[in-house]
Amino acid sequence: ARPRVGYFYSGKKSGQAITDTMTKWKVKDFQSVPVVIQEHISVYDAICQLFLEDVGSMFVTTKEGNLSGVVSRKDLLRIAIGNQDLTKMPVHMMMTRMPNITVCHKEDTLLSAAQQLMDRQIDSLPVVKQSAKGLEVIGRVTKTTITRAFLALSEEHDI
Amino acid sequence: ARPRVGYFYSGKKSGQAITDTMTKWKVKDFQSVPVVIQEHISVYDAICQLFLEDVGSMFVTTKEGNLSGVVSRKDLLRIAIGNQDLTKMPVHMMMTRMPNITVCHKEDTLLSAAQQLMDRQIDSLPVVKQSAKGLEVIGRVTKTTITRAFLALSEEHDI
Repeated sequence: ARPRVGYFYSGKKSGQAITDTMTKWKVKDFQSVPVVIQEHISVYDAICQLFLEDVGSMFVTTKEGNLSGVVSRKDLLRIAIGNQDLTKMPVHMMMTRMPNITVCHKEDTLLSAAQQLMDRQIDSLPVVKQSAKGLEVIGRVTKTTITRAFLALSEEHDI
Repeated sequence: ARPRVGYFYSGKKSGQAITDTMTKWKVKDFQSVPVVIQEHISVYDAICQLFLEDVGSMFVTTKEGNLSGVVSRKDLLRIAIGNQDLTKMPVHMMMTRMPNITVCHKEDTLLSAAQQLMDRQIDSLPVVKQSAKGLEVIGRVTKTTITRAFLALSEEHDI
């Protein structure tokens, strides 16, 4: 066999470069499309939307499009086993409201977003942009996003 | 200020070592405790257990303790908005059954478990051990597990 001498371009980065990658990765490089619903729709319609989009949580906005709440599968399951009429209850009655929502920004590092998901024990973070009228939701970071990044580390680097 | 010359032990591993870490990490190094329920309990009791343990999915076993199914928040939400009496329906009626369950083993790499979570679009993997009488559930790997590992990479290494 030919001895392996010299350098060969493998198309992957070296192990050393992983350190750079992890600190450089931004939320905007991995964020996914947010699923947004309006706060006046019924809990029943919100649950249908959750299944239709197959997501773990959705962001709720005012009519003007500003972030006002978050609803998760867990929130919806809790309300679904109660005795309320889900078609009559608006989603803003049971959502987690601002300012109790943890958000992130597209220029944040993915590491800091992952840390927030763990510290706050939440499933998803809305990626927001401050505008004159309020907070606009422009993306979503979840533990699925972080799992994708974890796999990308091994795919992009020669390990 | 004293110039930084020579090598100082920082208590963290070098960037290069991340490559070793990622390929060496096993499921058993990160798995969490599984939440297991028996297949004859009601869907209502299963939902209560899910909230009590605050997990995203639970593993279902036969009376003998063998893995027979998985139920997730999503499965439970789907059944909860139906018109059935949840206190009368046993959980085995609606669970995902063997052999349609993806499992992993404690000696598998964490990378392969993460890949399975993404490929199968599932929230959790039971860690199983084959015994003479069937599959025993000894752990759980979820996207939270992988997020924890992603953060551990940056904590254990000097990045």
